[in-house]
Amino acid sequence: MSDKRTVEVAFSPVLYPYKLTRDNFIVVIVDILRATTSITAAFENGVKEIIPVGSVEEARKWKERGYLVASERDGKTLDFADFGNSAFNFMTPEVKGKTIAYSTTNGTQAIEMANKNGEEVAIGSFNNLKALTDWIIDLNKNVVILCSGYKNKFNLEDAFYAGALAHRLMQSGVFMAECDSVTAAMDMWLSGKDNIEMYIDKAAHRERLRNRGQDDVLEYTFTIDNSSALPVLRKSDKRLINLSVNKE
Amino acid sequence: MSDKRTVEVAFSPVLYPYKLTRDNFIVVIVDILRATTSITAAFENGVKEIIPVGSVEEARKWKERGYLVASERDGKTLDFADFGNSAFNFMTPEVKGKTIAYSTTNGTQAIEMANKNGEEVAIGSFNNLKALTDWIIDLNKNVVILCSGYKNKFNLEDAFYAGALAHRLMQSGVFMAECDSVTAAMDMWLSGKDNIEMYIDKAAHRERLRNRGQDDVLEYTFTIDNSSALPVLRKSDKRLINLSVNKE
Repeated sequence: MSDKRTVEVAFSPVLYPYKLTRDNFIVVIVDILRATTSITAAFENGVKEIIPVGSVEEARKWKERGYLVASERDGKTLDFADFGNSAFNFMTPEVKGKTIAYSTTNGTQAIEMANKNGEEVAIGSFNNLKALTDWIIDLNKNVVILCSGYKNKFNLEDAFYAGALAHRLMQSGVFMAECDSVTAAMDMWLSGKDNIEMYIDKAAHRERLRNRGQDDVLEYTFTIDNSSALPVLRKSDKRLINLSVNKE
Repeated sequence: MSDKRTVEVAFSPVLYPYKLTRDNFIVVIVDILRATTSITAAFENGVKEIIPVGSVEEARKWKERGYLVASERDGKTLDFADFGNSAFNFMTPEVKGKTIAYSTTNGTQAIEMANKNGEEVAIGSFNNLKALTDWIIDLNKNVVILCSGYKNKFNLEDAFYAGALAHRLMQSGVFMAECDSVTAAMDMWLSGKDNIEMYIDKAAHRERLRNRGQDDVLEYTFTIDNSSALPVLRKSDKRLINLSVNKE
């Protein structure tokens, strides 16, 4: 038996609740277009806490309690919300030091699911890839990379990122791939990494964003390692904080 | 709206019951190592019918009724069964003209699931790739390629085959890719097709077969287009027949 720690990839939330093969793991949530990219951007811009919220009704209650609320469904900002789901929404001094309740179509629901399972949750994006990788390597934990997908289906951009993260973790020499999805994801990353724009152009959600006029955020989304933010949700906690400014 | 027919890929049975986006479709079941390869081989060798059986108890009942039974769990032939799950088991004159009840860990359960959904089901393998492709192109139906996976998880060899079949269908010009999993599967196929042995060597199940001394069947498994068998289960039927010898 190898004493290496394991990396697993779940390509969709419906593939996540399989019998986990290891105890002691951290779940990295991936929703590249756009929740986990936007959450990283929010912390990079000084947000204090983010409360992940599953349902629209719950988001509305946070608004009534006086919180800033980011909430979208199917690409549209909800009428009562302060922000939508673009990373650009959080690049404003208005958010500095604030707590934001955040609800989107796919991403925050995956966060809630992983947290119900009682495990530590981190937020992955291309922007904080190095920061996240370095932090995970220093932890004594196995890793499950959970792709939010699109309405429970496989999506290309989340799988592609899972491959990027898995590849960096494997290169450290302290991890082993637990399942075929790690191999497939790393192949995707290696085949597309030298021309990310062309690779992502094949993704269905990239087309949805284009149709909605929301694809201005793509260049930022696929910029690697421009953020040191480390959004993490602790087991007993209900709020994401930025570990890179909340050192233990 | 394009008037092309659609191809979808589900990388695992848990990804199958998503809201189907099209009516009028055929489901191609894939369990390359080894059920759908072996079912193709059985028909190629003159088997008359195959009854897909989900549970071990049901397989035992078919044995008691006097049928030949092929049944495995986790790579081991069950004590009451006549055959295991290797394609080689069916390359014997003993099976010619016979009806066989067939139950395995992953494959036949995917067949049962698709059939319960009331759709026409076909069996895909590398061996009958051309026969299946040609037949599907002539049908006026959309296609869902359903990978059996391994205990509901993604597996490499089924996704790789899904890519091979999707690629051939797309090349006909009458299909369009419905989802990102088609794109990802075709990328896997295109990156591995010129050295299949090396590509499949990365698969976890390939390692399991090696550990069990069952990898003698690999060369046959990845031989493309050496069978004209067309195993199909009709909507109201409970048995697979070989359409290539049962022309309508």
